[in-house]
Amino acid sequence: MEHIEGRQSVLAALHARQRKIQVILLRHGTHEQSVRDILDAAAEMNVPVRFVDRAELDSMAHGATHGGVLAVCSPKPRWTADQLTKLLDKLNEPPLLLLLEGVDDSRNLGFTIRSAEAMGVHALLIKKHLWDFDSTEVARPASGAYERMPLVQIDDVQPLVQLQKRGLRLWGCLADVKRTIYEADLTQPLILAIGGEKRGLSGAVRSICDGFMTIPTRAGASSLALSHASSIVVAEAMRQRLSRP
Amino acid sequence: MEHIEGRQSVLAALHARQRKIQVILLRHGTHEQSVRDILDAAAEMNVPVRFVDRAELDSMAHGATHGGVLAVCSPKPRWTADQLTKLLDKLNEPPLLLLLEGVDDSRNLGFTIRSAEAMGVHALLIKKHLWDFDSTEVARPASGAYERMPLVQIDDVQPLVQLQKRGLRLWGCLADVKRTIYEADLTQPLILAIGGEKRGLSGAVRSICDGFMTIPTRAGASSLALSHASSIVVAEAMRQRLSRP
Repeated sequence: MEHIEGRQSVLAALHARQRKIQVILLRHGTHEQSVRDILDAAAEMNVPVRFVDRAELDSMAHGATHGGVLAVCSPKPRWTADQLTKLLDKLNEPPLLLLLEGVDDSRNLGFTIRSAEAMGVHALLIKKHLWDFDSTEVARPASGAYERMPLVQIDDVQPLVQLQKRGLRLWGCLADVKRTIYEADLTQPLILAIGGEKRGLSGAVRSICDGFMTIPTRAGASSLALSHASSIVVAEAMRQRLSRP
Repeated sequence: MEHIEGRQSVLAALHARQRKIQVILLRHGTHEQSVRDILDAAAEMNVPVRFVDRAELDSMAHGATHGGVLAVCSPKPRWTADQLTKLLDKLNEPPLLLLLEGVDDSRNLGFTIRSAEAMGVHALLIKKHLWDFDSTEVARPASGAYERMPLVQIDDVQPLVQLQKRGLRLWGCLADVKRTIYEADLTQPLILAIGGEKRGLSGAVRSICDGFMTIPTRAGASSLALSHASSIVVAEAMRQRLSRP
């Protein structure tokens, strides 16, 4: 069992219908109007709602940001490669996938998912052997996007090769290459690959990339953080896609 | 007295020469080679260096990410409007300033500064009555950029009006306006104004803006987090400036 905390995340989980929600806890004294949408969605899906004391909520919650709303539920299921394929078949626009490698921090992952959704990323691929994220910590900064974004965990590059065979191009972001993200064509069916701050993209991923590009930054500045680099790249993809419909 | 933690931040503070550094503490057993640049810079500036036990360092540090390097120093001075004016006079490119309003979270501020520096922002204006940030928490995610970036604290709009009189245009980012950041001309002398996630830009700032613009996002997605929205806007300013030299 996991928790989802906060009005926005719980509502997103109800609407996304990816998790089995056992019960929703609301703080006694919460104005019904402020949680009307949660009560309606819960009723529609036959999810029980309990009103509890603030102390009881606080004792279950990770932090102080639940705002009086908490759901007890199954983990968000990761998608299989088959599910992803079916999604891609249904799209009426060129796929835009984001591949992350070397992400350790749950909060950074959450922010990355939030920006990715805002910029039209269809699914997130995470290359990682062990799924060791604290999902409550991922969900909070994602502000609902974690519940909606399809997540595929991969532990080798085979699924990427399969996607390439379906016509997607795999573009890696590196620090020291000549082509900028503004010169690359990001309107084609695409997997954008971004590596963690410590080690960047692995040799295995680099070896199958169709191309590389970099985010131009001012000389002498620190490198960008992962979630900010990925936000800038997915925003550029959206800019290009908006300008070439 | 404040602390700066981590190799990169301490080295940046030594080079930036904005703080008075009382002493630098290094963990016993640290390879001299890995801190050679810190030892050299400290010697040049007559800053004493002490080698101490890990336990002593840990007891002083905020977290576990100091990596064996900690500096005890004066707070980073905020710049006056006069200092900012002198900086603007010396620039040989159109000024690019970032104005933040309603930032509460030290870590988000640190990430914002890091991206801003990478994208060529010359100074950061923060509209806030009370400077209540934990500077160690700001400095860590900023990865050195906090030490280098000029910070000006303002508590009313008067300094902005003065900058407008000097020819800078004040552009506010809002959620629901028609003009996108891609349609706005960000190559002119500019103050980019971004508000916090809760309340956005204040009426006082809005009332003096020369124009408004929005970051286009996918319908139905959550709004962007502040540090990610600002990263995307300053990256777009840099893109435009690179393409129109």
